[in-house]
Amino acid sequence: MHTPAGKVSGYIVLMIVQIVFLVLFWLFVRYEKSAMPSQLVAEDAGSANEHVSKYPQFQDVQVMIFIGFGFLMTFLRKYGYSATGYTLFMSALVVQWSVLMKGFLHMEGGKISLSLESIIDADIAAAVPLISMGALLGRTTPIQLLCMSIFEVALFAANEYLALNVLSICDCGGSITVHAFGAYFGLAVALMLRPASDQNEAGKHEGANYASDIFAMIGTTFLWVYWPSFNSVLAAGSGGERAILNTFLALAAATVTTFVVSALVSHENKLDMVHVQNSTLAGGVAVGTVCNLLLGAHGAVLIGIIAGTVSVLGYRYLTPWLTSKLRLHDTCGVHNLHGMPALISAIASAIYASLVTADDYQSELQDIFPAMVGSNSTASKIMGGLGRNASTQAGYQLFGIALTLLIAIGGGILTGAVLKYTSFRNLQKDEQHQDEQFWEVPALENKEE
Amino acid sequence: MHTPAGKVSGYIVLMIVQIVFLVLFWLFVRYEKSAMPSQLVAEDAGSANEHVSKYPQFQDVQVMIFIGFGFLMTFLRKYGYSATGYTLFMSALVVQWSVLMKGFLHMEGGKISLSLESIIDADIAAAVPLISMGALLGRTTPIQLLCMSIFEVALFAANEYLALNVLSICDCGGSITVHAFGAYFGLAVALMLRPASDQNEAGKHEGANYASDIFAMIGTTFLWVYWPSFNSVLAAGSGGERAILNTFLALAAATVTTFVVSALVSHENKLDMVHVQNSTLAGGVAVGTVCNLLLGAHGAVLIGIIAGTVSVLGYRYLTPWLTSKLRLHDTCGVHNLHGMPALISAIASAIYASLVTADDYQSELQDIFPAMVGSNSTASKIMGGLGRNASTQAGYQLFGIALTLLIAIGGGILTGAVLKYTSFRNLQKDEQHQDEQFWEVPALENKEE
Amino acid sequence: MHTPAGKVSGYIVLMIVQIVFLVLFWLFVRYEKSAMPSQLVAEDAGSANEHVSKYPQFQDVQVMIFIGFGFLMTFLRKYGYSATGYTLFMSALVVQWSVLMKGFLHMEGGKISLSLESIIDADIAAAVPLISMGALLGRTTPIQLLCMSIFEVALFAANEYLALNVLSICDCGGSITVHAFGAYFGLAVALMLRPASDQNEAGKHEGANYASDIFAMIGTTFLWVYWPSFNSVLAAGSGGERAILNTFLALAAATVTTFVVSALVSHENKLDMVHVQNSTLAGGVAVGTVCNLLLGAHGAVLIGIIAGTVSVLGYRYLTPWLTSKLRLHDTCGVHNLHGMPALISAIASAIYASLVTADDYQSELQDIFPAMVGSNSTASKIMGGLGRNASTQAGYQLFGIALTLLIAIGGGILTGAVLKYTSFRNLQKDEQHQDEQFWEVPALENKEE
Repeated sequence: MHTPAGKVSGYIVLMIVQIVFLVLFWLFVRYEKSAMPSQLVAEDAGSANEHVSKYPQFQDVQVMIFIGFGFLMTFLRKYGYSATGYTLFMSALVVQWSVLMKGFLHMEGGKISLSLESIIDADIAAAVPLISMGALLGRTTPIQLLCMSIFEVALFAANEYLALNVLSICDCGGSITVHAFGAYFGLAVALMLRPASDQNEAGKHEGANYASDIFAMIGTTFLWVYWPSFNSVLAAGSGGERAILNTFLALAAATVTTFVVSALVSHENKLDMVHVQNSTLAGGVAVGTVCNLLLGAHGAVLIGIIAGTVSVLGYRYLTPWLTSKLRLHDTCGVHNLHGMPALISAIASAIYASLVTADDYQSELQDIFPAMVGSNSTASKIMGGLGRNASTQAGYQLFGIALTLLIAIGGGILTGAVLKYTSFRNLQKDEQHQDEQFWEVPALENKEE
Repeated sequence: MHTPAGKVSGYIVLMIVQIVFLVLFWLFVRYEKSAMPSQLVAEDAGSANEHVSKYPQFQDVQVMIFIGFGFLMTFLRKYGYSATGYTLFMSALVVQWSVLMKGFLHMEGGKISLSLESIIDADIAAAVPLISMGALLGRTTPIQLLCMSIFEVALFAANEYLALNVLSICDCGGSITVHAFGAYFGLAVALMLRPASDQNEAGKHEGANYASDIFAMIGTTFLWVYWPSFNSVLAAGSGGERAILNTFLALAAATVTTFVVSALVSHENKLDMVHVQNSTLAGGVAVGTVCNLLLGAHGAVLIGIIAGTVSVLGYRYLTPWLTSKLRLHDTCGVHNLHGMPALISAIASAIYASLVTADDYQSELQDIFPAMVGSNSTASKIMGGLGRNASTQAGYQLFGIALTLLIAIGGGILTGAVLKYTSFRNLQKDEQHQDEQFWEVPALENKEE
Repeated sequence: MHTPAGKVSGYIVLMIVQIVFLVLFWLFVRYEKSAMPSQLVAEDAGSANEHVSKYPQFQDVQVMIFIGFGFLMTFLRKYGYSATGYTLFMSALVVQWSVLMKGFLHMEGGKISLSLESIIDADIAAAVPLISMGALLGRTTPIQLLCMSIFEVALFAANEYLALNVLSICDCGGSITVHAFGAYFGLAVALMLRPASDQNEAGKHEGANYASDIFAMIGTTFLWVYWPSFNSVLAAGSGGERAILNTFLALAAATVTTFVVSALVSHENKLDMVHVQNSTLAGGVAVGTVCNLLLGAHGAVLIGIIAGTVSVLGYRYLTPWLTSKLRLHDTCGVHNLHGMPALISAIASAIYASLVTADDYQSELQDIFPAMVGSNSTASKIMGGLGRNASTQAGYQLFGIALTLLIAIGGGILTGAVLKYTSFRNLQKDEQHQDEQFWEVPALENKEE
């Protein structure tokens, strides 16, 4: 039984969190030098401009997070308020938390520097719990989701720090640190929250209608269009242009493949909107970690073809199997859109890393594989020392994904246990996949009108 | 009784207005030098590029005006054609009118200069009557709306000139000159068009349905995402980056606060889509005037928390009171999204202005508070002379909002009187909040299919 | 009678096409120098940045192609999966094909250079079959559409090469090479696929409902907002700013005119969503070819007024006549949005070209009208030699549109014949304008819920 009082205490906790953020911002966060007035008139304009030259890509990422993820999840016919609303709520909380968490890991002089880069990082961090939310969609209360996102983002920041700064792996588009982490964390939570075996059938509201499927295509299409910005926003030098080109081609190839494979494996050879909404994007995930490498157009296209195929087959065969055997309900199929394509990306990164020569990457080796440069580097935290050779770097790439899976799944199981066994309210079967429990919904006569 | 002939004459007047615009463009408007071919090959390319470097932000503002405002107003279940259509119609008329009106106020040699800056200003001007339209949504004919927008934009341009060039107030994101002006002008018109006291109940079509609420979330989300561009597009130097950062954080804090307060004050502690669609954006308005100042992250977050709270409480308690006591129907609640948050922004600007020292802003004082610089400035029109101290500037900020309210409310009452008492047709109660009066709407059997 | 096997073979052919693309990418495509690591650290950063400075405009064009075209075509009430889905499918195929086709026409050393410019061109090429798809919407199988797009894009690339590189016409926004080509090719295919004379009435599903019309407005509005980017993305120097300004003003004037003329000519003087969704955009097409010329604001506005008027009158009077007399069904009315406005643009280009003097365009004459420059140019392929005078260039502009019409209509007739008389399956009358034939559609009870 839930009581309004139960809800109230959850929301009040979230307000306290917001006020704690306010205090932490006041104590620790300061504008970076580029965002402070300078003594010279307009002399620094050049460098200031350069500093915000990533702004258009940041805005593309914003659209992906808020419109893309939000609308992609509106496909459930009675859960559209929650899909778009919780996306906004969760992201607004997480972006603040990410500025603080990632800031604490990179403080200078006891202060956190706030710049455009901080909020780019914050938007990317917001993707992580949104991916996990996809695995749980319709099966949790908003309070559970929001609390999960706070735990998850802290763990994400730590894992990312380990992977990028200690293990020194390449992960330009974040497929390992963002997509694999978010997907397997969410799946682990979903496993913990799995229904009793006599309640394992799909929920009665767990499906799309015609309009909700088209709303979801708004999300899909904006994610598709802006994915090159997501993958390239943190790339440097000519790697930025390669990230754009490779991502674009991988998405195109994954899309063609998705339509074909969807038709071939579906009932009566009809196209399935679930595949079109999701698997078309798998190319963007699968090329993520390696998007700034010298893949060549054919490399990007090949990765796209593999990703589209694996993703559609995952939706068609693996997801139903996981549901029936493990009672693992993955509402949006994030395993097929984020999980497996991210594994493909990690494997691709090991393969391409094993082929790297200093000649290929010239001066950009420092940016892309800093641990493969000689001892004149200053990044002293790198594990395994400097001057790694190509096969060592390949091994580290695999170590990176393994560690990420370990932390994500471990963290997810722990978080799921907290959400299930502590005083959080859990949804009953018939309360799932519908807004009415937590939202004012227009009375039926309006809808019928 | 309306006759087609009545509609016809209104549309013909609007066509004549369009042709008058054509003639005025021909007589007065010329490309600015940056948009003219030069003698040197590519030598000026640098400066030309610099000139259009605001283009991505301009496009963000375009999306806010046409998609953001247009879809935010689709929440009414039978008024979606009007919401999106009149937004397009009104904005297309206003942007031309704004190029001319603002041009006449800044002519050089009898000619108006046309550049990217002109159309950025034009898009911002389009926001003003769109805000007013929100207060009136569903209660006017399109002819009334369009004619109102022509009066209003002329008055807006004059008030903005007074506030920025004569009073020399700071208003980087336009909360005073755009949001407060548009909101209170629209509310004054709404007051003039208020129903008779026996017709004060809500219209029978005045409400959302499930799909219309999700369409409205498209508007909300794009406004949310691109609001940092709106606030920063006219900022200079490092103030541009601060405007982005402060707006982002204020929006995030307002959003978290909106969800919490909405749940706490609503019926059965359920979230209310009206709050989610609107109050989440109040942080963007409330930080507008001060977005390029040295607020610090905590300042921006505090403003966001206050704005979200005030906005939700306004929707929950103040709007129903205004409706029942004053018969002031504010269909979209612009008072809660634009009006009160803009007042918060104006007050914040007085507080922050009172704390300004030349040391803080260094070389940027000239851009942000030109009247506080010594006599070497050339801006001779500034009222109160140059070399203002901080508390004088604070006073001028309050003078600026007071003058804006005076002109907006006075102009709105006058305009409302013209719309009500002259030969404009007024909508009857049962014609309100539905497209059918002015649009071909698909026959019912299609909708039921 | 169709059998699943019939569908299967079509999809398998498309998969083979995708694999052929993979091989061609592997054999022929290489990153351009700007996308390759260089020896020097960050020294080339400036030029690398310059190289990707068109990226924000590319992203705007991406939104136009995938969201704009996709959602504009969702107006049919039972064809929304197809509209958004086939847009994604077709564009994903075409962008790859365009990189290859246009690459083959500009190879250097037997290799195709891949850069941001390639994918900008690819997105523009994707518009061509999407325009044709508008003429055929709901009347073909996806296999027919996709195969058509492969033929069409090859022909488009050849025609564009002839028009721009051999005839050396100006066509900055592509109204001749993209809009006229796509529209008349599609209309020619539609003519070949025309129904028997006893089946000439509209399909029973060929219409909008309330929600589908609002979904379509998403497409319209994004096309409107980003059209300046489409027209200016390939412009150089100050022509880029003129392209933005002229397109913006032409759209605004066309929009006002569309609303007025729609009301004046429609039944009971009610606004018609078909006009609002489409004719408001006609100004963008009509100004396309000349958008970087010295039109002046009044020139752009005049073109917009003409385009809006012609387009609405076309929808109101010409389209029904073509349908009843020629059995030419143009589902989206592309003749009124793309066809006739493109002819207006071509005629305008001849008029403005006839007025060009070297003094007007200074150093930019080389970019805009290369054939009008003296013999020091290196573009030796230009037909008619170098040093053309203004009236000769005007003649070439008309020659360019005539050749385009010839190739488009000829190619369309041929393609239509192939689609009709070879082993492609054709849709029966009652299978048209609905998704169910090729998509899994939610069962009716879900929709009614």
